[in-house]
Amino acid sequence: MNIKKDLPEIYESFSEARKNGFITAKNLKDKGIALIGTFCTYMPQEIAMASGAVVVSLCSTSDETIGDAEKDLPRNLCPLIKSSYGFGKTDKCPYFYFSDLIVGETTCDGKKKMYEYLGEFKSVHVMQLPNSQSGDKSFGLWKSEIVKLKETIEEKFGIKVSEERIKEAIKIKNKERQALKRFYSLGKLEPPALTGHDIFKVINGSGFKFNKENSIKELSELTETVRRGYEEGKRLESKPRILITGCPIGGAAEKVIKAIEDNGAYVVAFENCNVSKANELLVDEDKNVFDALAEKYLAIGCSCMSPNPNRLDLLGKMIEEYKVDGVVDVVLQACHTYAVETLSVKKFTSSKFDIPYMALETDYSKSDIGQLNTRMAAFIEML
Amino acid sequence: MNIKKDLPEIYESFSEARKNGFITAKNLKDKGIALIGTFCTYMPQEIAMASGAVVVSLCSTSDETIGDAEKDLPRNLCPLIKSSYGFGKTDKCPYFYFSDLIVGETTCDGKKKMYEYLGEFKSVHVMQLPNSQSGDKSFGLWKSEIVKLKETIEEKFGIKVSEERIKEAIKIKNKERQALKRFYSLGKLEPPALTGHDIFKVINGSGFKFNKENSIKELSELTETVRRGYEEGKRLESKPRILITGCPIGGAAEKVIKAIEDNGAYVVAFENCNVSKANELLVDEDKNVFDALAEKYLAIGCSCMSPNPNRLDLLGKMIEEYKVDGVVDVVLQACHTYAVETLSVKKFTSSKFDIPYMALETDYSKSDIGQLNTRMAAFIEML
Repeated sequence: MNIKKDLPEIYESFSEARKNGFITAKNLKDKGIALIGTFCTYMPQEIAMASGAVVVSLCSTSDETIGDAEKDLPRNLCPLIKSSYGFGKTDKCPYFYFSDLIVGETTCDGKKKMYEYLGEFKSVHVMQLPNSQSGDKSFGLWKSEIVKLKETIEEKFGIKVSEERIKEAIKIKNKERQALKRFYSLGKLEPPALTGHDIFKVINGSGFKFNKENSIKELSELTETVRRGYEEGKRLESKPRILITGCPIGGAAEKVIKAIEDNGAYVVAFENCNVSKANELLVDEDKNVFDALAEKYLAIGCSCMSPNPNRLDLLGKMIEEYKVDGVVDVVLQACHTYAVETLSVKKFTSSKFDIPYMALETDYSKSDIGQLNTRMAAFIEML
Repeated sequence: MNIKKDLPEIYESFSEARKNGFITAKNLKDKGIALIGTFCTYMPQEIAMASGAVVVSLCSTSDETIGDAEKDLPRNLCPLIKSSYGFGKTDKCPYFYFSDLIVGETTCDGKKKMYEYLGEFKSVHVMQLPNSQSGDKSFGLWKSEIVKLKETIEEKFGIKVSEERIKEAIKIKNKERQALKRFYSLGKLEPPALTGHDIFKVINGSGFKFNKENSIKELSELTETVRRGYEEGKRLESKPRILITGCPIGGAAEKVIKAIEDNGAYVVAFENCNVSKANELLVDEDKNVFDALAEKYLAIGCSCMSPNPNRLDLLGKMIEEYKVDGVVDVVLQACHTYAVETLSVKKFTSSKFDIPYMALETDYSKSDIGQLNTRMAAFIEML
């Protein structure tokens, strides 16, 4: 990384990583390296990495293919699910096109049923995620699903995935998580060092940098550069500090970040899959690899878990550490688990922290941007 | 049962069983008999019966309490879930009021999350249902959940539930299933012996007759009476024969049966939870009770299972045996799993049987009755 670049330029380069990755993906394929496509934070990437494959996050954040998806799927379904299926069906996403195997999980009703259809024209492996984090049997099921993923990959690519290689992958992923966390923890600074949108671009974009060692180095240098600049006085003005929680955002749904930051506040923290849900917890490097992976991934505080105490634990911790003034809970249209959970998150933020909370249902269209701006301006005004 | 009653009067008496059961439930409570409330076909009633408790199906089929539910739950959620929660919250349902324990299952996103809130003011036990019928670990999880239900009941009521008592309960439930099946199999007759609405009233109502031995006897006598009458010439005229599949109906959603039968056809078969999904398969009486129960209940062809081959198997069998001319797939609003599955059911009915298929989204309101009539008349006209 050329650290002489301006910071905004560097943030933009992360944002562009997804598009630039298309070429890299093709080059990897030409070299005979397998690509494994994923959708979700529950996918234990270490298994795929240990097999020598490259893990790519499949396109699912634009409304471009929703029309095609709605020929097969109900309209009243989460845009992420429709978008994913649409990209698979139309092959408009190069990552889909190049993926040798797609790994999904039974996280929610819509996804698990959509994978049945996706499996008719793509090579799809679905991991059985239990509905609860507690109990030996749920843990046992999830652990066995991680072993089964390894076996599926071994069979598919005619290779052996050793525990030693998995251990190495665990170490690299842990390092990456720590580097990502050091970067997004810059959001704790008050006044802020950078906007929430820039934090988001970097974290989201880093998922499309396939050389993990390089990406970790880049992230660490960037964090250092921002910190140094901050100490030298490169600071934003102080504004109300928003935490975004809820459904995964990215792509079209980044309009929520924009609406917040265009209307007088900064997003300083993201309690969602794109950012902290994926990276706060590390995988235990001393345990049996399958136990350690099962433990880490099953502990993700997704609303698909019932009950879901880990979400509130992380949320509470972040509200304090990031000195949050207000919480915006993003619910993608028809995502039942996050929609139902808004009530408990609202109760939690008001009873424990006495800070304002807003639940926001949105989709991937541009049609609600005006309304988003109005609602955000009103919300921020009362902070 | 006074078999001198007219048949319509007898059908009506089953239909009234739910209301009359309120008094019975109170009397049972006064005698110190425990009531266990349930929502779903996955609940292994045998465990509750073996404990000496009476199992009641909780109110969930009217829009009366949906307004109250929507204060806590999203509007875009299945009416069955909202209705259930609303009845629990308002205590407008005597069965809810009298239930000592409510047993739910993680069948779908909406239900599993709703139970978290219901558990705040009712005694709720949630069984962890896996997302798949295949694999040892999913089976093991479900079996352990059945054992856990037994332990929960034992602890709650300070009793012991012996395997012998469970075996007895299995035998009674099997007898009941066979009696129910003999009755609803009357739908195979061509021309029909009775309307689909009458079949439905009897099957649905029998769930509210708490003395199983009596109920089995009544059902058998009724089946015999109808058969005898049929042989003596009491027949309806021949009309197009419809099979209803999809979400549970009953209460407000019976409007679909009415719309079909008011517009020139008969419903001769129900491939849904109220009727065949619950009763086609028996519990193996020779196996270990927990294995046998796990096997039977996990095999239910609900769309919450992924994949869900058992639904298509049963559907195909019923289309043939009931000489079905058209399939109506009822999807309660925002039920993602049944909504997504409409595509595969449509493909199945057209490719294997070449008969017309219609998916119908509805809720518990009366507002779509006009539209239902129009659509049904058009559908039936083309049969």
